[in-house]
Amino acid sequence: MSGSASFIAVDWGTTNRRIFRFDGGAVAHTEHDDRGAASVTDFAGEVAAIRERFGDLPMLLAGMVGSTVGWRVVPYVAALAGVDDLVAGLGWIDDRTAIVPGVSCSKNGRGDVMRGEEVQLLGAVAGWMVPPDALLAQPGTHCKWATMTGGRIAGFTTAMTGELFALLRGHSLLAGSLTADVTDSEAFREGLAEGARRDLAASLFGIRAASVLGLRDDADAASFASGVLIGADVAARMDDCAFEQVHILADAALGDLYAAAVAATGREPVIVDSHSAFARGILAIGDKAL
Amino acid sequence: MSGSASFIAVDWGTTNRRIFRFDGGAVAHTEHDDRGAASVTDFAGEVAAIRERFGDLPMLLAGMVGSTVGWRVVPYVAALAGVDDLVAGLGWIDDRTAIVPGVSCSKNGRGDVMRGEEVQLLGAVAGWMVPPDALLAQPGTHCKWATMTGGRIAGFTTAMTGELFALLRGHSLLAGSLTADVTDSEAFREGLAEGARRDLAASLFGIRAASVLGLRDDADAASFASGVLIGADVAARMDDCAFEQVHILADAALGDLYAAAVAATGREPVIVDSHSAFARGILAIGDKAL
Repeated sequence: MSGSASFIAVDWGTTNRRIFRFDGGAVAHTEHDDRGAASVTDFAGEVAAIRERFGDLPMLLAGMVGSTVGWRVVPYVAALAGVDDLVAGLGWIDDRTAIVPGVSCSKNGRGDVMRGEEVQLLGAVAGWMVPPDALLAQPGTHCKWATMTGGRIAGFTTAMTGELFALLRGHSLLAGSLTADVTDSEAFREGLAEGARRDLAASLFGIRAASVLGLRDDADAASFASGVLIGADVAARMDDCAFEQVHILADAALGDLYAAAVAATGREPVIVDSHSAFARGILAIGDKAL
Repeated sequence: MSGSASFIAVDWGTTNRRIFRFDGGAVAHTEHDDRGAASVTDFAGEVAAIRERFGDLPMLLAGMVGSTVGWRVVPYVAALAGVDDLVAGLGWIDDRTAIVPGVSCSKNGRGDVMRGEEVQLLGAVAGWMVPPDALLAQPGTHCKWATMTGGRIAGFTTAMTGELFALLRGHSLLAGSLTADVTDSEAFREGLAEGARRDLAASLFGIRAASVLGLRDDADAASFASGVLIGADVAARMDDCAFEQVHILADAALGDLYAAAVAATGREPVIVDSHSAFARGILAIGDKAL
């Protein structure tokens, strides 16, 4: 592809997807819906329907569509992984439809995996939104923390911070206390400090004890609990962090909470638009692959 | 009561209870059933039924029967708390039926609470099973770690270690991998070492990654996960621990897992029978109260 060609990209997660049409190296149109990989069985039919709506164009699919819950399992590319490595690892369905591989890494016998986040990471660098050597955080159900070296993904750690919060809110002894919205409040900041002690199981029971003893308003419990979880996540990542800046790829609300947590550790948070990063990343891949 | 009198004691938790009849300072009979406080509405009727079966004797009730899910809310006694303090705080239903109060503590603005465990703790000292200055662990859904000073409860920390494991096994992304029994296996020991890093959210996602990458047999995942949670709990408690021994009050299976975790930190674990400790504790209270 010359960089001016047109194609369709799908950021296809487990529960949601975002579809982009690119014309001449820019996003011409984008749509978001809830037809995630886990709810789709006829992927060929879905792709045909997307082409009917967005144009009969080459397609790149990224994310969980390449996993066991998706269309076809595309093997992970091992870190160090840059754009060229992802292009070499594309899983071709036919000669104009390919799935972007995820990335794996391994350090000291501990392995980790990502699918979908790699496009944002490489796009953030390709689009000059972050330096080629940087630490990036992608908060969410499973928060990814990736180190970029020379513009490639060098290694990463996933923390199930968002999932733990959902488990506590949905099913734990604390569920009844965690119904309020999470805000960057004084309770959230107190939670960050508590989380930095990295004693999660005790800090979380402390929410119950504070409620029973009347030490904290139950309306503040959700923000405090989120602060504990995010504070523990961020504190663990700062242990051996050589970077003064932490770049955060997230939607506004969650990005602000992580930014506050990063700032509390004395580092400088920098928010990066995750949709722009994905677009730049998939453009870089399309430029070499299509 | 002279120490030779007879009475009935109930260790009445949320989901289970154990009933003891004491004659002459010894357990004459004991029974266990699942009529926990949360499943009972007519406590007066239950107590009458117990007296019909066990004898028309004075009764001491301990545990969640004194909480909001129980018969009557009996205020916590603040630490330092010894046998005399619990006797002074008894919640009398009538002149021969009393509920033992729970204990609260507060340090650096962090509060904690217990109901039921205090009887075991004081009984372990009263029965010479542990020294009057000691660190005791009571593993379970909510693991209590109590420091005894001069035979009284000086302070304690609760970690929701068991509840986190149940949440992960029941409702998380890892649920499908955590079906096996937990054993003190090599995987459990590896989990302890991982847990000691005190980076719970990342260590837990690592279980998923190891499964996806084929780095660990799924049959070992439950033991590893339990090791991570118990390892993190124990490591946090050893931070400022002045004791060479850790006394563990638990059933055999869970006690052995915590003993292995304590030993892994270089401390000496000592297992104490929790039912004997409860019996000695409630006898000490009955001796002064009835």
